[in-house]
Parts: sequence; structure tokens; C-alpha cells
Amino acid sequence: MAEPVRLALLGCGTVGSQVVRLLAEHEHDLTARVGRPLELVGVAVRDVSRPRHGVPDHLLTDDADTLVRRGDIDVVVELVGGIEPARSLVLAAMDAGASVVTANKALMAADGATLHRAADAAGVDLYFEAAVAGAIPLLRPLRESLVGDRVQRVMGIVNGTTNYVLDRMDTEGQALKEVLAEAQRLGYAEADPSADVDGHDAAAKAAILASLAFHTRVSADQVEVTGIREVTLGDIAGAQAMRGVVKLLAVAERLDARRIGVWVAPTIIPRAHPLGSVHGAFNAVVVEAEAAGQLMFYGQGAGGTPTASAVLGDVVTTARNRVQGVLGVGESTYADVLVAPPGDAITRYHLVVDVDDRPGVLASVAGLFAANGVSIETVRQETRQAADAELVVVTHPAAKRALDATVEDLRGSPEVRSVLSVLRVEAL
Amino acid sequence: MAEPVRLALLGCGTVGSQVVRLLAEHEHDLTARVGRPLELVGVAVRDVSRPRHGVPDHLLTDDADTLVRRGDIDVVVELVGGIEPARSLVLAAMDAGASVVTANKALMAADGATLHRAADAAGVDLYFEAAVAGAIPLLRPLRESLVGDRVQRVMGIVNGTTNYVLDRMDTEGQALKEVLAEAQRLGYAEADPSADVDGHDAAAKAAILASLAFHTRVSADQVEVTGIREVTLGDIAGAQAMRGVVKLLAVAERLDARRIGVWVAPTIIPRAHPLGSVHGAFNAVVVEAEAAGQLMFYGQGAGGTPTASAVLGDVVTTARNRVQGVLGVGESTYADVLVAPPGDAITRYHLVVDVDDRPGVLASVAGLFAANGVSIETVRQETRQAADAELVVVTHPAAKRALDATVEDLRGSPEVRSVLSVLRVEAL
Repeated sequence: MAEPVRLALLGCGTVGSQVVRLLAEHEHDLTARVGRPLELVGVAVRDVSRPRHGVPDHLLTDDADTLVRRGDIDVVVELVGGIEPARSLVLAAMDAGASVVTANKALMAADGATLHRAADAAGVDLYFEAAVAGAIPLLRPLRESLVGDRVQRVMGIVNGTTNYVLDRMDTEGQALKEVLAEAQRLGYAEADPSADVDGHDAAAKAAILASLAFHTRVSADQVEVTGIREVTLGDIAGAQAMRGVVKLLAVAERLDARRIGVWVAPTIIPRAHPLGSVHGAFNAVVVEAEAAGQLMFYGQGAGGTPTASAVLGDVVTTARNRVQGVLGVGESTYADVLVAPPGDAITRYHLVVDVDDRPGVLASVAGLFAANGVSIETVRQETRQAADAELVVVTHPAAKRALDATVEDLRGSPEVRSVLSVLRVEAL
Repeated sequence: MAEPVRLALLGCGTVGSQVVRLLAEHEHDLTARVGRPLELVGVAVRDVSRPRHGVPDHLLTDDADTLVRRGDIDVVVELVGGIEPARSLVLAAMDAGASVVTANKALMAADGATLHRAADAAGVDLYFEAAVAGAIPLLRPLRESLVGDRVQRVMGIVNGTTNYVLDRMDTEGQALKEVLAEAQRLGYAEADPSADVDGHDAAAKAAILASLAFHTRVSADQVEVTGIREVTLGDIAGAQAMRGVVKLLAVAERLDARRIGVWVAPTIIPRAHPLGSVHGAFNAVVVEAEAAGQLMFYGQGAGGTPTASAVLGDVVTTARNRVQGVLGVGESTYADVLVAPPGDAITRYHLVVDVDDRPGVLASVAGLFAANGVSIETVRQETRQAADAELVVVTHPAAKRALDATVEDLRGSPEVRSVLSVLRVEAL
């Protein structure tokens, strides 16, 4: 029997337990694919007294630090999540000569640079397919298949919880709070849903996608983020009126030769757009490349088993690299591009403004847009009740900065009662 | 300046000319990604007197054979197509130490085994992402990302011409011949469209996908093929009546632990299925894996520029492997599975049968299905005119062999005027 490739697992929750199961069930296939057997030599958990299905007791330890420093481990699979202690453990594992496979989007987005540097210094692999869009093979196509092309834009639905919520608002006409409460009851949303609802989870993924697509370093704090908390049924209806649908999009796009924009925001897209029919907890990412044109990748974005599939794909790859004594594709940051500040992102906007219903108001409101250099594409005026009208404005592409200034001016105008809604519009 | 990676191009038509253009336009990016410059050292064409935009005259040759045998070439890109002389050229190139990138689905599907063996023997890479679904990164995810998972089924729309034809029949109500003539005028279909219309192009791709998904060797002649020539507007209407749409599907699926089925046939799928909204010349492939669940890959399946993107991705990968002195993932054929003979494939069927409209006919027809072990799910009887009725039968899953026998019995029955249509039904 050939010397096995030795694995250690940090964390044995929803994903980790599925990794353990698949390692056992697919043992024959995995051995054939790697060229040597994979052997699980340690599993670090918080509570060793809790029985773990399929994990022999003697492999369990609550001392992750000692486990990663053993020095005889080929691949450490980090499924702890969060920044610390995950980062220290990963760095220690690399320092001890292990390649690392991680599903940790927060860590990769916050401090991927440190991890990549450490992997380079230690001469080990760092793979993280499961960090974005769960089971969907996305990072490898970006890093490897499209490497001869030039990506113009990556635009995706990368958070299942918010997609489920927006979907229910769209199809059932339920308000956000109501759907969210239901999602929490069903276990689709966390007790504290802010990482999802406020867009931070999507922002971490946007940063990772932007880094890979544009061969530069982008961290989560460079992503302009708007969550879905303010999305109303009025917004949903407004989108429906233009044959669109509201989705929380994560976008990374080339603005010009030297700058990219990276943002997350609820956005109206056409119902007929490939992303328009992505329902429930599914994820999908559209990649627009100069030569390849529009590509879409679709699948389950979360869940123990789908995520375990992505983790195992990386485990096989890095294990095979070990067997052959080679390294996989490392970080690519040669490109001389900067992340533009948030105000520079250019999209179209859909605004709903509650105004006094009297002559001259439309002209006055249109004047505020013009004064800020925001060009109006269409405007529709609807009388709501006596003396009260609603203006629905769709703009031509405008910089976020100019749009923000316009909204501020609108709010300061005596004829404007309130700005009811501001949403981005893409591909319509 | 580091020693360049030397490329030779065989063929400089629609795809080749785009490869030449992108090599020049993306020179800076490609050098950064490979780690050394890429240098085009020769381009073999049939007619050297024809000017080729972007190709210096001194690189052109009509002697491909001598070009591939030079011995100083790192990567040969084969875009000649067809079996010979492409195969001999590829084998000679490998023998002379060059890695090979090809877009040749016919060759890979007919004799991939020989090419893989030659690549192994010569210690060179063989990449062929562009052979299936043009620009869509599909082979690499199957070979590498899903390598820790177990694929159950691959089901795709992999031929743009037939998808365009079926799409027009569905949306415009035009008959097949009419649409095909129009497609030929517009250049979407070949003057001799039989490779597309009779399903052979899709069958070659099905064979390649099956090989990768199931880690075994499948050649085009093992694929059961039905083209779209017999699809009528009546079939389209029948699909519409059950909220479905007719698509030419290429399917490779696990039948049991030891057998897979591989087939191409016009099939009714639900309009709401991810593949149901793939329009025009686009391609899409759904992969169902045990852990990852349902994944979809979508994009342009043909065209010079999209295909060139896939070719260049492979060129960069194999060039980088050269620079690092390593080999990429080779053929994987460890799995002990066989391709089941055509009659073993199991699907549901939709049949339209023209019968005499008199009492007892339905019972008699149903008896023929039962006698062949084919279970009926629904049957709808419609009177067409005096004494003439139409039976629309949807079966439960049945083996093709049993269905074929049923159709033969129907055709021999005195009460049956004709079997108007037989289509497979999937996912409905």
C-alpha cells in the first residue's frame, strides 16, 4: 500500500461531518483519483465528549493548535469559520508544511493576502472553492479556465438567505419582516440574520470573486455594501411594473483600464435575465468575459453536503499535487488595477419619490436631477390621493456619488414629501 | 527576457484567427499568467497565399507535418477538425515533445483513448476544453472541481444549431424545414446540416462528457442517437400542452453501480427546468452530483471568439505546466463501468397515436403497452374527425427496448392508423 496522504479536519459541524462521511463512502474513488489513499489523522472540535458519527474517538481533539503543528499532516481542512482562531491555525498549519483547504469566506475576504503570502513562503497550496457559492465550481474556472480571456464583469446572487427572502416577497407579496421571521423558524436564516440581510456575507464573496477575476487584491472592506433591510413591497411592485425582479447582487466590474468597482446592493434586473429565474436558496454567478461572452454558473450555494463536495474537490486536487510534488495555481495579483471608491460605481437607478401633486413639481424635481448631472430616462407620475403624487424615475447610468447628492437634494426640497425608494437597475 | 513558451497553430479559420488576435491583444496579461511570454512560431494553413490578419507571412506554412515535427515547439494548438489528418498531426506533435490543445470533438470522441495514451507515453499534456460547449468551462470543473464527488447525471443542450431550430419552432410555430432553410441563409446552420440535425455533433460531446463524468472511456459510436429531423409542430404543441418544451438533450447517466447510459434525443422537459429557458445558439449543461446536487453551466457553445477563449485558457494552463515542469490532470479511466446497450436506457415517453375512433380501441392500445411491460401514466383521447381519434400517451419510466417493441406492436395493430410521434420526457 502506498503511503497515504494525511488529512486533518478543523471543525466537524454541518460541513465537516459531511466531509467525513464522503471520505469514507467514496474511499475507493478518492484513492483512484489521488493516486494514494487519503487518511484522516485528526479532527479538532470544541467538545470532544459529543459523539461524531463516523469519527473514531481517538481522532478527536479539542487542541487544534497542537494538531496543526504536528508536522506529519499533508492537508489541513479548515472549517472553523470566522477570523480568529481560524487565521492563526491556518498560518501554523502552513508553517508546519501542510497545504490548506478552507471554506472560510470571511477570512479569505478579510485577509487573503496574508494567507497567500504564507502559502508561498511555506511552499504549500491554498484552495478555497467552497468559500464562494458553495458547491458551484466557480473559483477554478475563474482562476484557470478563463485565464486566457479578460473578465469584464462578475455579477451574482451569492447569498441564499436574502434570495429566499426577496423571492418570497416577489411571489407571495409578504413583507420582509414576515418572511424573515418565517425563514428563521424554518432554519433558513440565522437567529441574528444581519450578516446575510445587511449584505456582509455577499460582500466577502464579492471581494474574493473580484480578486480572482481581476488578478488583484480586494478585501471585504473595499466593497460598497447595501443590504436588503430597506426593501419594501413597493420596491418589489415597482420592479414588477417594469418586468423586473429585485435581487441582492454582488458585482465586480471593470470601470476602465485602471479601476474596478465592487459592490453589493438590492438591484432590479429583468425577469428574463439568467439571474432573474434563480429562486430560493440557489446561487448563480454570471461572468462576462471579452472573448467568452456571457457565462453562468448555477447551483446550491450552501448546505453541508454541497459545500463538502467543493471542499473534497479541493482536497483531491491538493492531495494530488502533494503526490506529484507540485504546487497548484497560486495567487495572481499582477494586474495594476485599483478598487474605485464607492461613489464611482456607475449604474442606472429606480427611484420612487412622494411629492405634492401640483403643477411645476415634476419640472422642479427633474431640475434637481439635472443639477447633479443625473440624466433621467423615464419618469411616471401617479396621483396617490388628493394633493399627493408619486414620481417613479428611472435614470440613465449615473455615478453613485451623483445619485446620492440628488437624493439629498430631493430630501431637502419643499415639494418632496419623501424619497420612498432607491434601487439600482442592471441589464434592463 | 525569459525564454518564451513556443506555440504552433494548426488551422487559422474562425477560431484560429481569434486565437491569434487574443494572443497579441492580451500579450501582457498572458505573459503575467504564464510566467513567460508566449511566442507563436508557426501557423499551418491550407492556402498560404491568402492573407491572414495579424499573422506575419513568414510564420505561415502549408506543411503542417513538418511544423509539428520541428521539436522546438512547446504547445501545438490543433484547430483543423475532423479525424485525419488531425490525429496524425497531434500524435506526431506529442512524439516530438509538444503538449496539445485541441477543440476537436470529433477526434476526441472517436479516438480519445489513443490520444491520451500517446500523451502519457510522451509525457505531455492534452487539453480539450473547447471541444464541448465552446466557451463554457465545463471539462475542468468535471475533471477537477467535482473530483471529490460522484456524478449521477450530465444532461445538456450542447448543439446550438438544433437548439435554434427547436426554439423557433416553439416560439414562431414554423416547421423544421422552414427554420432550417432560414438558419442556413443566416449562416447558423451548415449547407449540409446533418452532423447537427441528426445528432452526431451532440453525440460526440456526450461521449466526451460521459468519459469525464464517469471516469471511463466512452466513444461516439457507443452513444444512442436520435436527431431532430422527425420533430413536428405537433410534437411541439404536445410538449406545450404539458407545459414542456422540446430540446435536443445529450445525456450521460448512471444506471446502476456498473452501467451508464449515454444518449442524444429530442426530449420534452419542463419549461421551468433550468434547461427549458436556454434559447437560440446558447448551450447549457446540468450536472447532478451526489453531494453537490444540481449544477448548471451556461454560455455560448460555439463561435470563433468564445471558442478561442476556451482554447487560450488551455494554452495558458499547459504553458504554465511547461514552465513549472509539471503535467496536468491526465485521463481518468479507473472506474469499472460499462456503457449499457441502447435499449437499456430508461426514460418516460410521450407518444401520439392516430387510431380508429370506436369503442374498445383505447383498451386494446393500452393492452399493447401492458403486454410489453410499459406502464401508462396518462392517456388523453381526442376526436379529430369522424371515426378518427388521437391518443396522447405518457408512460412511466420504461426501457427503450420495451418502448420500441410497443411501437412496433402499435404499428402492426389494425386499429392504429399511425404512430405520429415518440418523444422522451425528462424531469417532468
